[in-house]
Amino acid sequence: MVKKFIIAIDLGGTNLKCALLDSSLKIKAKSSFSTKSFDNKYKLIQGITDSVDSFILNQRLKRSAILGVGIGVPGPVDTLKGIVHFLPNIPGWKEVRLKKILEQKTKLSVFIDNDAKLMTLAEHGAGAAKKYKNVLCLTLGTGVGGGLIINDLLYRGPDNAAGEAGHFPLNERGPRCGCGARGCLETYVGNNKIIKDARKLFGSKITLERVSALARQNNPEAIDFWSQVGKKLGLALSGIVNLLNLDLIVIGGGVSCAGGVLFENIRRTILLRAMLVQAKRVRVVKAKLGIDAGIIGAGYLVKERLGR
Amino acid sequence: MVKKFIIAIDLGGTNLKCALLDSSLKIKAKSSFSTKSFDNKYKLIQGITDSVDSFILNQRLKRSAILGVGIGVPGPVDTLKGIVHFLPNIPGWKEVRLKKILEQKTKLSVFIDNDAKLMTLAEHGAGAAKKYKNVLCLTLGTGVGGGLIINDLLYRGPDNAAGEAGHFPLNERGPRCGCGARGCLETYVGNNKIIKDARKLFGSKITLERVSALARQNNPEAIDFWSQVGKKLGLALSGIVNLLNLDLIVIGGGVSCAGGVLFENIRRTILLRAMLVQAKRVRVVKAKLGIDAGIIGAGYLVKERLGR
Repeated sequence: MVKKFIIAIDLGGTNLKCALLDSSLKIKAKSSFSTKSFDNKYKLIQGITDSVDSFILNQRLKRSAILGVGIGVPGPVDTLKGIVHFLPNIPGWKEVRLKKILEQKTKLSVFIDNDAKLMTLAEHGAGAAKKYKNVLCLTLGTGVGGGLIINDLLYRGPDNAAGEAGHFPLNERGPRCGCGARGCLETYVGNNKIIKDARKLFGSKITLERVSALARQNNPEAIDFWSQVGKKLGLALSGIVNLLNLDLIVIGGGVSCAGGVLFENIRRTILLRAMLVQAKRVRVVKAKLGIDAGIIGAGYLVKERLGR
Repeated sequence: MVKKFIIAIDLGGTNLKCALLDSSLKIKAKSSFSTKSFDNKYKLIQGITDSVDSFILNQRLKRSAILGVGIGVPGPVDTLKGIVHFLPNIPGWKEVRLKKILEQKTKLSVFIDNDAKLMTLAEHGAGAAKKYKNVLCLTLGTGVGGGLIINDLLYRGPDNAAGEAGHFPLNERGPRCGCGARGCLETYVGNNKIIKDARKLFGSKITLERVSALARQNNPEAIDFWSQVGKKLGLALSGIVNLLNLDLIVIGGGVSCAGGVLFENIRRTILLRAMLVQAKRVRVVKAKLGIDAGIIGAGYLVKERLGR
């Protein structure tokens, strides 16, 4: 049998990561570029095309050995038509027919999805959610995104918009959210909010990585800081756990590195707030695949679409 | 082909309703008793058995013509094992092996589930949610229950506990809820709360039916009353709509009879609060099957389990 490969692209607000995967989704080669190094949308698309071509060239592959190209992008996507609706953190992207453009340029099958959905596919296929049937994967960053596995399949909803756990309303009169509503979970635990709180407590030069390190060193203010974040997360997750009777919640993204105190407070709040049966069932764990989740997820997307 | 029948039982806090259904779930005969007329659990179970027997006797059926007995109960259930965990509004029921007991007594196959789940099966099979793939059915009563259809199937979760939309937290410091948490949707729109509010406004003898009638006659206080209930419902539903990208929300139970003003406020709040794509997709409608939903749902349960 001829060996087959997948090219996986993780387009993030900060980096464009590309990888060549074998058919069991092991990484064979990798490249990475700063997203900002591409002046505009056209140059970024050309950057993706060039990365695809250079894998094929450098590894001396035939185009027919490539099953397809999977791409994750940080925003809402029509995954069937391959249209990027917009990217909140990368300017100039609006209703871009990325699948069609890249298929013409690369002569390969291209599949596109939202990055949180690909992280979910990856964690379910090869990470912390392997062997769990009903799962919420939450990514904590500037935005709070998510994806749902229901009965062992990624649940997308009619508009591929399911999984938006960051816009769970916690307070009718809470702070205004980027989505237009008020008091969404994201306004309490999104990076913009918590870095602001951290600066008030620890001075203007503090980073969230540093607050995590302080918590691990048992600094009481840092522990209290992450406890508060964990409690807000636990409150929102209680509602979701009551509604969906989940087996597992996987938490990824930068904030998930805060460590034990964050997870303990999430778990304790769920036990306190959620209904008994649902609270006892659900486990809450850290994502396993880290920075490669987007790449691995893009590989699963290609396999999902090609029915492999 | 021999004609086949299903016996459907809807055990409620108020009434025990029984029906003989044909294989297309049309009601052929019906009986109803006050639940309180049975002194205890044993007499109630005997009442169910007697109803089953009298359908068979009166309609001159052979036991082999009965596909099975479907039963809905108002509380949490292990539907596979057929165990009723407890019934909040019917005393004396705790871990009752109702399936086993009734199968011994009736010599028929018996299937049991929670009433909100059966209402959901019924509305999806033959009511307002027919032809919709992803649906939340909400029942508004003393308790606020629900059921979820995901990709055209009833989604139960690992403990058959999914769908509890009434315990969605709206306010961290809100009123204490029967489930042990605070500020659940049920504490704002459950009958106990809204009848209390209604009495403050309209005097101690008012009923919710009367407040509904007043709203239909354009009484401004009654309209404002149902607007407030609609807004609270809309707020909780916004979070669920963001998370699940639903096609449809079906609202049943007594309060759903409040009419246009309730539904308009739910829809307006979702448009205001939920994310654009999800808010534009979801429709919000009244349940269609009314008081027969439990019976029809019990029929669908038997069909689901027997793979028909």
